[in-house]
Amino acid sequence: MAEFDLVVAGGEVITASDRARCDVGVKDGRITALAEGLTGAARTIDAAGLWVLPGGVDSHVHIAQPSGPGITMADDFASATAAAACGGNTTVMPFALQERGHGLRETVEAYHAKAKGNCRIDVSFHLIISDATPAVLGQELPALVKAGYTSFKVFMTYDDLVLDDRSLLEVMDVARRERALVMVHAEGYDSLKFMTERLEAEGKTAPYWHGPSRPDVIEREATHRAVSHAQLVGTPLMVVHVSSRAAMEQIQWAKAQGLPVFAETCPQYLTLTADDLRGLEMDMTGAKYVCSPPPRTTDDQAAIWAGIEQGVFTTFSSDHAPFRYDDVEGKLNPKARTSFRWVPNGLPGIETRLPIFFSEGVSKGRISPEQFVALTATNHARMYGLYPKKGTIAVGADADLTLWDPHRRETIRQEILHHGADYTPWEGFAVTGWPVVTIARGEVVAEAGRLTGTPGHGTHLARGVSSALRAGA
Amino acid sequence: MAEFDLVVAGGEVITASDRARCDVGVKDGRITALAEGLTGAARTIDAAGLWVLPGGVDSHVHIAQPSGPGITMADDFASATAAAACGGNTTVMPFALQERGHGLRETVEAYHAKAKGNCRIDVSFHLIISDATPAVLGQELPALVKAGYTSFKVFMTYDDLVLDDRSLLEVMDVARRERALVMVHAEGYDSLKFMTERLEAEGKTAPYWHGPSRPDVIEREATHRAVSHAQLVGTPLMVVHVSSRAAMEQIQWAKAQGLPVFAETCPQYLTLTADDLRGLEMDMTGAKYVCSPPPRTTDDQAAIWAGIEQGVFTTFSSDHAPFRYDDVEGKLNPKARTSFRWVPNGLPGIETRLPIFFSEGVSKGRISPEQFVALTATNHARMYGLYPKKGTIAVGADADLTLWDPHRRETIRQEILHHGADYTPWEGFAVTGWPVVTIARGEVVAEAGRLTGTPGHGTHLARGVSSALRAGA
Amino acid sequence: MAEFDLVVAGGEVITASDRARCDVGVKDGRITALAEGLTGAARTIDAAGLWVLPGGVDSHVHIAQPSGPGITMADDFASATAAAACGGNTTVMPFALQERGHGLRETVEAYHAKAKGNCRIDVSFHLIISDATPAVLGQELPALVKAGYTSFKVFMTYDDLVLDDRSLLEVMDVARRERALVMVHAEGYDSLKFMTERLEAEGKTAPYWHGPSRPDVIEREATHRAVSHAQLVGTPLMVVHVSSRAAMEQIQWAKAQGLPVFAETCPQYLTLTADDLRGLEMDMTGAKYVCSPPPRTTDDQAAIWAGIEQGVFTTFSSDHAPFRYDDVEGKLNPKARTSFRWVPNGLPGIETRLPIFFSEGVSKGRISPEQFVALTATNHARMYGLYPKKGTIAVGADADLTLWDPHRRETIRQEILHHGADYTPWEGFAVTGWPVVTIARGEVVAEAGRLTGTPGHGTHLARGVSSALRAGA
Amino acid sequence: MAEFDLVVAGGEVITASDRARCDVGVKDGRITALAEGLTGAARTIDAAGLWVLPGGVDSHVHIAQPSGPGITMADDFASATAAAACGGNTTVMPFALQERGHGLRETVEAYHAKAKGNCRIDVSFHLIISDATPAVLGQELPALVKAGYTSFKVFMTYDDLVLDDRSLLEVMDVARRERALVMVHAEGYDSLKFMTERLEAEGKTAPYWHGPSRPDVIEREATHRAVSHAQLVGTPLMVVHVSSRAAMEQIQWAKAQGLPVFAETCPQYLTLTADDLRGLEMDMTGAKYVCSPPPRTTDDQAAIWAGIEQGVFTTFSSDHAPFRYDDVEGKLNPKARTSFRWVPNGLPGIETRLPIFFSEGVSKGRISPEQFVALTATNHARMYGLYPKKGTIAVGADADLTLWDPHRRETIRQEILHHGADYTPWEGFAVTGWPVVTIARGEVVAEAGRLTGTPGHGTHLARGVSSALRAGA
Repeated sequence: MAEFDLVVAGGEVITASDRARCDVGVKDGRITALAEGLTGAARTIDAAGLWVLPGGVDSHVHIAQPSGPGITMADDFASATAAAACGGNTTVMPFALQERGHGLRETVEAYHAKAKGNCRIDVSFHLIISDATPAVLGQELPALVKAGYTSFKVFMTYDDLVLDDRSLLEVMDVARRERALVMVHAEGYDSLKFMTERLEAEGKTAPYWHGPSRPDVIEREATHRAVSHAQLVGTPLMVVHVSSRAAMEQIQWAKAQGLPVFAETCPQYLTLTADDLRGLEMDMTGAKYVCSPPPRTTDDQAAIWAGIEQGVFTTFSSDHAPFRYDDVEGKLNPKARTSFRWVPNGLPGIETRLPIFFSEGVSKGRISPEQFVALTATNHARMYGLYPKKGTIAVGADADLTLWDPHRRETIRQEILHHGADYTPWEGFAVTGWPVVTIARGEVVAEAGRLTGTPGHGTHLARGVSSALRAGA
Repeated sequence: MAEFDLVVAGGEVITASDRARCDVGVKDGRITALAEGLTGAARTIDAAGLWVLPGGVDSHVHIAQPSGPGITMADDFASATAAAACGGNTTVMPFALQERGHGLRETVEAYHAKAKGNCRIDVSFHLIISDATPAVLGQELPALVKAGYTSFKVFMTYDDLVLDDRSLLEVMDVARRERALVMVHAEGYDSLKFMTERLEAEGKTAPYWHGPSRPDVIEREATHRAVSHAQLVGTPLMVVHVSSRAAMEQIQWAKAQGLPVFAETCPQYLTLTADDLRGLEMDMTGAKYVCSPPPRTTDDQAAIWAGIEQGVFTTFSSDHAPFRYDDVEGKLNPKARTSFRWVPNGLPGIETRLPIFFSEGVSKGRISPEQFVALTATNHARMYGLYPKKGTIAVGADADLTLWDPHRRETIRQEILHHGADYTPWEGFAVTGWPVVTIARGEVVAEAGRLTGTPGHGTHLARGVSSALRAGA
Repeated sequence: MAEFDLVVAGGEVITASDRARCDVGVKDGRITALAEGLTGAARTIDAAGLWVLPGGVDSHVHIAQPSGPGITMADDFASATAAAACGGNTTVMPFALQERGHGLRETVEAYHAKAKGNCRIDVSFHLIISDATPAVLGQELPALVKAGYTSFKVFMTYDDLVLDDRSLLEVMDVARRERALVMVHAEGYDSLKFMTERLEAEGKTAPYWHGPSRPDVIEREATHRAVSHAQLVGTPLMVVHVSSRAAMEQIQWAKAQGLPVFAETCPQYLTLTADDLRGLEMDMTGAKYVCSPPPRTTDDQAAIWAGIEQGVFTTFSSDHAPFRYDDVEGKLNPKARTSFRWVPNGLPGIETRLPIFFSEGVSKGRISPEQFVALTATNHARMYGLYPKKGTIAVGADADLTLWDPHRRETIRQEILHHGADYTPWEGFAVTGWPVVTIARGEVVAEAGRLTGTPGHGTHLARGVSSALRAGA
Repeated sequence: MAEFDLVVAGGEVITASDRARCDVGVKDGRITALAEGLTGAARTIDAAGLWVLPGGVDSHVHIAQPSGPGITMADDFASATAAAACGGNTTVMPFALQERGHGLRETVEAYHAKAKGNCRIDVSFHLIISDATPAVLGQELPALVKAGYTSFKVFMTYDDLVLDDRSLLEVMDVARRERALVMVHAEGYDSLKFMTERLEAEGKTAPYWHGPSRPDVIEREATHRAVSHAQLVGTPLMVVHVSSRAAMEQIQWAKAQGLPVFAETCPQYLTLTADDLRGLEMDMTGAKYVCSPPPRTTDDQAAIWAGIEQGVFTTFSSDHAPFRYDDVEGKLNPKARTSFRWVPNGLPGIETRLPIFFSEGVSKGRISPEQFVALTATNHARMYGLYPKKGTIAVGADADLTLWDPHRRETIRQEILHHGADYTPWEGFAVTGWPVVTIARGEVVAEAGRLTGTPGHGTHLARGVSSALRAGA
């Protein structure tokens, strides 16, 4: 056997289905051996007492996106990938967001320009289609799918992004023909506009009212509608950031019908509730928790947990969408104080996703370590065409590893985080289990909360076909 | 006891819950006695061997409506009410259809002008809202509800009628405030447009393809959406002409959640299938069966029957929408030959609803006579604010009676019918059970298939609040 | 028209489907006219301002039954029918309970002997089969069904009554062949014995533990089992006293499969909870609320109400099973103090069923007056073969009427009741709506809380076939 | 790195979650390396073009069991393990069946005596409890669980095996306390006895009537009952050989409630139907297909497939229960000709399980190779406490490997099989995919359909706690 660049020795290696005490041998950025007693390494990391997990794949993050007039997300590619690496991730999947009136190809190039040379870990773009013109549907999308952008997201709400039903159907039809995966943000535009105006007319404008403006029935309806459209067209569907029991039951129902419908959920739907948006006293401090869909009830949390345990959810992502407190709270964005409608929507979560889910899920005995790996890494790679290069620990895969201390107790605080936001919604949240070393393609990129890699290490990944589109996969 | 203008003697009187052998005494158009051995009548009709039912109330008929360029429905108020009377009905509820750019009040007046002096039995208009302008929502609708037009229908499809989601919500919101009942035609416009164009592009233009252009998933999605909107607004909903198992399951699900959602179905969904649209050989003769939603499968028929038996459906209507064969087949309407899209949508059914349902339901033992009465008369009156004046046989109610021969065998043929259409989709359909005398407000208006009343006998009925809007009703 | 023995004038006459302001004319114990302005009566009762309802039919009462060693129920036929009459009922259906080792015919005769000459209102016996011998199955049951005992009840628990699965199947098979209706007490014997012994072993013997000894899963399992047996045999089933959401969902599921499964519930499952069995401080005073199935949670109450509103339940009965406090509490029955297992099971309710249900249902707007009539009278008569003689107000029916004051406020107290029990579980329960006159076959048997009839007025009713066994009925 | 006894080189290594092209290094019967380019092996097997799967674990086989008077199963441990090895298995789990009147410890010893020295691959016994005496429940079971017999099976039918509900509860309670897993054969004894006698009375005695004697409702009821008992006691449950949509829906329902209920199915429920029992013309040749539960309909097959795809089933086993044709057909067992009741119940399947499932599942694109591995090996090991030693390919695990040719076409015929039965129900069944080499603890035990190992190679495995009993596992 050839020598190794790196050996991770003596850890408990965990995949989506297995655990084994063994060494991991790395050569040229790939895993070349899983074995007992590996020797001959340039560098050896002692993983005794630690778990060796596939590096996290976060398939739902927003980086360097504009978000309304004058506001850009608080993370660029450098800070986002730094935070991700420190949080135990080795791949993130941000969006290239088409602004109306712009082409898709130029959109992609613009995002590549922002990313180029700045990423510490690997990235791969999903597309967001906001303008389904004939050129987009007929030329640009097919060409981009062939070039490895094999997933795109559509929105059923937001003034600047919403697609009408006809456009949804057309985009899905392209996905069917080109073998790409459609992701959908399922909230109904007209319904929540209706509710928003009703609340505003009643003077209910504090951040708290963000929640009541988009009750679960609005998410449920849009979910049913998206599922129906995908069924009509005959293409798989990934419903992202499912937040409520009602929406989840639509997913379950679809699966029971044999439809290829998949779902994602996020930490905010397991740990936050509508009450967090009250802030101190129905004041602007609630703006820190404004995201869409909104956090709901403890009953919804219980339902989402049950769905995770029973396999309703395929992926667990962050939906990282970081803002600065001055923006959400309105200091730099005075409109936000006039109505919840203008508070930027989104939470920072790229760095805290894994510890929160591990602690609440594995440490509390709700899910197994293998389920954790599947939900945070392997299934992302499979769903989005990165497998087997990414998402697992196997001979031949990229050497993307996170060394995890399952017993370490930590308290989440803004001061220990590396993201661009200037607050975390989980300030003071205590967890058991923490990533201690992150290795991306054989290089240690983060260790003990410190960055050790370089911005240029990460590259963009062209992707293959989603497992959702391959029979028996 | 005072004398009677009319006594119907010796029949089996059947209501939605009871049956009793007794005489019915009528004075001044009202029922004043149900008793044994009534005497002292100006006229006595011997009903021995017959069933005495409340006159049919058909809450879903289209009369004298325009339907696309140059085509008007084949029935005016004279012929429609004549046919209805001969078919055992004493009240019909047509629509006053708002054309875009026109006000509601002028619409109502125009329909009243068409009806005035021409009706043989009583009529009462629902409104169709196709243009939900601020004036309609803010002034006209509230005023018309107060004037007794307590129900309105909205369409989720058809180029000239479709309301977008925001308008649906606004109309429902007016209904909630004004205590009116919203009826919905639940098929999704964009989805079926998408399917239609796809089929046309494949050269699939014969009437048969009308069915595949609007599969059950499109009805199911729109049903779920309408239910969700009504739930969001907080108002009851009547889903008309439910045709498929899939849509019906949405209704059942809504009811199980405790939502005030009601449903109607029609003879075509119990007796016709998609195959009827094939015609002789995928030719234009299939156009006779083009209606929306389209007839589906025998499995759907079984599901709808089960729903009827188990109480999922509140009303059984005709959705009478009569055309001339030359129009549907394309002789006078050449566009119909270019695509199913241009075939006028609708079937004549005002005269055959009761015999078909009685024969398939009561004579075949699927439902009881009492259920028949509830589904064809009483529940219509309750749902649309005509009860207790209409829809039952009780002291004080209008003397609207149908004498029914439960054993009479008849074959439905165009030549015995009185409607304005020049064909019936049920040509040759054999039934057991037939209406032999129809009495409207104490007057015999039809007898043995002959009209005996006069066009001026029927009046328009202002209506009260739907039972769906009254607690515990 | 002949004259009348009695006219009830000016009330609001309510049936299962209708209401009408009219007079009711009675001759020879039967209703012969419903009309305006009836004259010529020997006696006229002014019902202005009152509702005229069909007299209550209580199809589930226990009278003069033994219940364990040395204890007999607190009501004989005289007191039970007196209480029933004062509570607005005109027919009750007690059980003739076969004791093991005894024949059915002798059982029936013994109960007739107890009843004869003592009943103030009509009665009709169901049979309880506790010993399904070949003679019972082969000769006695068929003969008794032919003689008008067209329903029998089987128990899945209780030491002295439980039938094993084979016997349940055999009894159901006789019911199928002879066209009788099977009623089932659905709780699993072995399971609750197991739980009882476990609790006793833990020293949990107070009346409160009666509830935990038979959790809803035990009722649910037995319900599913009974439904399955009936499905296998091919015969309808009436599941009596359904108490829990879990059991009710089995009924709903069975109905959705198209199975002829029916259900009954009772006041205790709408108004009492497991906490009532705590008594003052887990003491013997909780014994007043011991019945089976036990009162459950407020969530179960809500589910049962939803089931009532949505038509899951066909009948609402009392399951009257009265004891003296000294018996349940253990003064005269010391064993009761050693374990909840020995506390006699049952509550008195024959006199309070109608006011409680009217008040909680009609007065609070959950159900309509028509639903109240259906659930408390008409459906009982239909299900048990007494219709159309009993259960409605129609020409030709027995003149069984209850004059009801819908606005009268009353507080239930033992001192105003006529039953044989010396307490009521609803002591202090405030209601709106109260029966003021009860008329049985044309005779006033109770008025303003006073008995006015005589013990001999009531007779035993032979019954016809259940509507559950007639197609389309 | 140390040298290897064996290297399997160049195959596609597949686990329950992953696939990787790599070599497998084996030392002392264990896997010590998964790597590229392993050298230094005593023996190298070239697996190029083959898949390397974990050896099959068949957790439901009957070996050397008596089955009614005078009949013993057609396989002893030698032939059963030989057939299993040739069929690609490396571990089988037979039953030690307690006969009534015998102790459990003596039962176990008797089966060990039959197995000792005769097994070619590893075995581990489940217990069958047919006599739940206090000694069994109180002493023997707890001791045996501690000794590694951590699962036991109970029967709800069969004259000699059936446990009543109380015994089921008591056995489950021991399982809960001792942390063992209960497996249940869910068919209702009384119900099928009732049906059997009814059919026999009608002269319906041919093997075909075996199916109608135990319709799906009987399996469904018993499944619901077993689930309820396990829920009451608070212990996990494995429902074995689920055959029908109806029973499967009970499992799904239980899972949706969050209950730890698991399910197994078998090849016969995917490939055979009730019609196979017709034989040539309702003759004894149908006896070859008599097993319990019986093969059902193609709709049930579709439901079971959907359940497999959606994760309802945890394990896929053979339920191997081999007989000689003379026994089932009645030549040596004349009673079998008098009624289906006496035909021995069971099919041989130990050798054909994997090829049938691979071909119908993986080759036809219904499931992925990873799902195949999970359902045929990994999940068995997890559920029954053999993991991580068995059921996967990981460093440290036993070197149990099956080299599989995914493209090889083969036709199942009795003449190529090694089991003790003298027929196979799948005679002539064509498959794609076939095991070509079986390696047990590092030794090649079968190759190209020939046995290469020795009877003594297999040992008995004491087991740990089921994953069903470990939180988050």
